[in-house]
Formats: sequence, C-alpha cells, structure tokens
Amino acid sequence: MPPVHSVFETELQVRPDDIDMNQHVHSSRYIDYVLAARYDQMARCYKMPMDEFLKLGYGWVIRVSHIEFKRPLLLGERFLIRTSIEEIYKDGVKVSFHIVKKETGKLICDGYFHYTMVALENGRAAEIPEWIVEKYSI
Amino acid sequence: MPPVHSVFETELQVRPDDIDMNQHVHSSRYIDYVLAARYDQMARCYKMPMDEFLKLGYGWVIRVSHIEFKRPLLLGERFLIRTSIEEIYKDGVKVSFHIVKKETGKLICDGYFHYTMVALENGRAAEIPEWIVEKYSI
Amino acid sequence: MPPVHSVFETELQVRPDDIDMNQHVHSSRYIDYVLAARYDQMARCYKMPMDEFLKLGYGWVIRVSHIEFKRPLLLGERFLIRTSIEEIYKDGVKVSFHIVKKETGKLICDGYFHYTMVALENGRAAEIPEWIVEKYSI
Amino acid sequence: MPPVHSVFETELQVRPDDIDMNQHVHSSRYIDYVLAARYDQMARCYKMPMDEFLKLGYGWVIRVSHIEFKRPLLLGERFLIRTSIEEIYKDGVKVSFHIVKKETGKLICDGYFHYTMVALENGRAAEIPEWIVEKYSI
Repeated sequence: MPPVHSVFETELQVRPDDIDMNQHVHSSRYIDYVLAARYDQMARCYKMPMDEFLKLGYGWVIRVSHIEFKRPLLLGERFLIRTSIEEIYKDGVKVSFHIVKKETGKLICDGYFHYTMVALENGRAAEIPEWIVEKYSI
Repeated sequence: MPPVHSVFETELQVRPDDIDMNQHVHSSRYIDYVLAARYDQMARCYKMPMDEFLKLGYGWVIRVSHIEFKRPLLLGERFLIRTSIEEIYKDGVKVSFHIVKKETGKLICDGYFHYTMVALENGRAAEIPEWIVEKYSI
Repeated sequence: MPPVHSVFETELQVRPDDIDMNQHVHSSRYIDYVLAARYDQMARCYKMPMDEFLKLGYGWVIRVSHIEFKRPLLLGERFLIRTSIEEIYKDGVKVSFHIVKKETGKLICDGYFHYTMVALENGRAAEIPEWIVEKYSI
Repeated sequence: MPPVHSVFETELQVRPDDIDMNQHVHSSRYIDYVLAARYDQMARCYKMPMDEFLKLGYGWVIRVSHIEFKRPLLLGERFLIRTSIEEIYKDGVKVSFHIVKKETGKLICDGYFHYTMVALENGRAAEIPEWIVEKYSI
C-alpha cells in the first residue's frame, strides 16, 4: 500500500500582469503559481526551505510538467494551490496539484510535475538523503 | 493510415528577461516560446493567422500542456521550435513540439499541446469548419 | 495651496518568477507591482474599480514611468506599495509611489507615473468627468 | 564640448506573451526590450559582453529608469531599439534609448536609464577602469 502524503495549500491572488490578451490568466503563469506554492510549502509545511537545499549544494529542476486546463482565472481573483507529493523516487519527486477558485472552489487546472534533485556543482541528478526523504514523507 | 503532417520551424533567441534565478531559461517561458512559434507558423506556414480566426469569431484555448525538459537554454542562445499537428479532432488539434539549440541541434525539451477552438461569443468549443481543417492538413 | 491627497497602501509578496539572474526582483516587475497596487486601491480605497471605467468606455494608459531604484527585493519578501495622487490634470493623473520592505520599512524604490484617461472607442485622451475627479480627490 | 557617442540598433519582434489585457505590449516589457538591446550591443558593438564584466567581478544595476510612452506596439510587430551612451560617470553610465516601429519608423517610446557598475563581491558601486571607459567611448 502506497504511503498517503499530505495535501498542502497556498493562497494567491491574480496580478494584472498575469492577464494576457484573452482577458484571463496567461497559461504559462500556472507553472509560476505552482512554483510559488511549492516554495511557500517547502518552508512552511515541510520545514525545509529551498535555501537549505542550496546551502547543502542541492537544487531542484523540473523534468516534466503536465497541466490540464479546465476554466480560466480572471483579474484579481483569489485562488488556492493544493499540492501533494505522489511519489518519492531515488533522485526526485512527483508532485500533483490542483488550483481552485477561492470563492467557489471550482477547479481551474490540475496536473503534476516531476522534479529531480541535482548537485549544484555538476548539475547531475543526486540521490535524496534519507533524512530529507523523511521530512518530505509527511 | 494516419495523415503525415508537415513539421514547421521558427527561430527565436533567449531574452535576458527569460532567465531566472538558476541562470537559465525559466521553465514557464517554454510555453511562451511554443505559443510564439504557433502564431508565426499559423500566418507564415498555414496561411491563416490568428487574426483571421478572431475575425470569424473563433479563438483557441489550451486544454493540455505537456513538457519534458531535457537540458536548459542559456542567455542569448538561439533555438528552433519545431511543431507539427499530430491529430485534428472535431473541435481541436494536438500539436507536438521539439525545441533544439540552433548551434548544436541538441534537444532542449519536447512535448505536446491540445488546443480547442472556441466560439468567442460564449467561450464554448466549436466545430472546426472543413475548409479550416484542410488549411491545417498540410 | 494644492490639495493633499491620501496615501494608500497595498501589501504583496515576491513570487519566485519575479526573480532574475541576479537573484533579486527583476527591474521591470516593479512596474507590475505598482500596477497591481493601483488596481487594488482603485477598488478598495477610491471605490471605483477599473471595471467601472471600462463599463463607461474609459481606459487608462501610462504616459510616463519614472523609477529610482534604491535596494533590491529578494525571494519571498513581503513589501508595501504606497501610492498617492500628486496631481489631477484635465485628462490624467500623476501618481507617486514608494515601495518599502514590510519587515524593516527600508525603501526599495520610488518614483511616479503619469496616467492618461482614454476613450476606448478611439484611444484618445478624454476629459475626466467632475464626479470621477471628486472620487479620486480623497 | 561633450563627446558624441554612437547610436547602436537592435531589432526584435513582439512575442504573444508580451501582450497584455489591452491588446498591446505590456508597459513593463519595454524595460526588458531595452535590456535585451543592451546585452546584444555590449557584445556586438562595444566588444565587451556582460560575461566579461562578470568574469572581472563586476555587474551592472539600474539606478533610474525613465520611459515616455508615445504609442503602443502590437502583436508580432518588428521594432528597433536604438541606444546611445549619453554620459559616462566615475561609476556608471546614462544610456538614452528610442524604440521605433520597423515598418514605419514611428516612435513607440523613449527615455533613459542610469546604470551603476558594482563589484559583485559586495554589491557596492565600483569605479569603471579606464580601459573599459575607452571601450564604451565609441
């Protein structure tokens, strides 16, 4: 039976510069929103912020991004980004996400990202130490 | 036997504002690069630019984006975005893409997008008229 | 004696996609931050959101932007954008702003924007109706 | 009599992600366009690219940006960014710029930037060595 990981939530608001010619949030900004949520949750929820990885000589890179768009976000709207670790690999994690409107709970988009941990000195995939796996297994 | 569609190519160069804190192109910008290539190719290769769709009361929205990142692009590098229609549905298309470095031909990332054609008046999926299907079947 | 206008304040937080290759907020994003603050304050403080202008057939365009950069904002930092109308012209306003770090109150940048109100139908400068001048004279 | 410095030119094209909700180039992107032109011209025209500054332990930061907007750029339009060093200070330069439409030569915006050279080790303003002043005095 696979471990069940926590779902964490970050609230953000659409900025005017996120809006594109179609009067709704530009599609590429959803990648930025999930990134912002992960940074927030790494520090606040997993108690191991990106800074700490960098000090240890590690970084994270995206290997795969997959997004399914359901409905658009509009100017000024507040939304919740919920993310959850689906799997932890030897050198990376699969993170699934849902973005919903705060007011109605309606689904904006969902999908997943594969992140790989790399050693900053050579940019190569690095094995995630056991103590970090534990921190991220909540 | 499925029809074999043409592969079209657009050349772009990395701008300084595309670079993020990791000193390479920010991941969400690849969505913007593919979008730029499609705009260029709609006009130049398919002879039916976005403007013409808008005049007819149609727009295009992204339903799915899937990107696999292989290696990063760096400041000032020139690159080629190759896209190809993989499938044409009743109300949309699946477009696959490859981004390669111009100098070395090395693969930066690849993936696909599902686009749906919508009627601008109500935002709902619209059936692609046969004469447009033909234009995009080259 | 010129009228003294209120100073309004909006709080925001730096997103990871705002950070550039120099590890601090990319210079052009400060224009976006001031824009975001004005949108917020138009609705919340002046009780006349951008939407209402659009419904009346008016829009706002930037004529001049002037920014003096003092020190950088860093990833995740919270900051306050304080703006104030300095002058109201026949067809526009001069808005001055200060951005300060929330934690220390230290000045990040300051400057001003000239905005012109335009009629959306032709894009030309339009005279600001007296009742709108009054709303913005608080 | 002050020295007369060369005017250098870089050509770019508007990308779809540069367009905002008003259907023209988002105001903050003009800062990015001038930045892109300076990177190009530092390498191509002054024969001293940013890389070389970084290797010497120097960086450049913006102290002041001033932009006067005349008319908008639209999706896909090609434009020329002309920049010229107006003054060289002990620790910085004032660069003036004009952006014009390629097809018509019409002025889009103009203005200036004050850049300060900093030592990367402490972020403080650094005196520009005489041999660099000479390179930038063409």
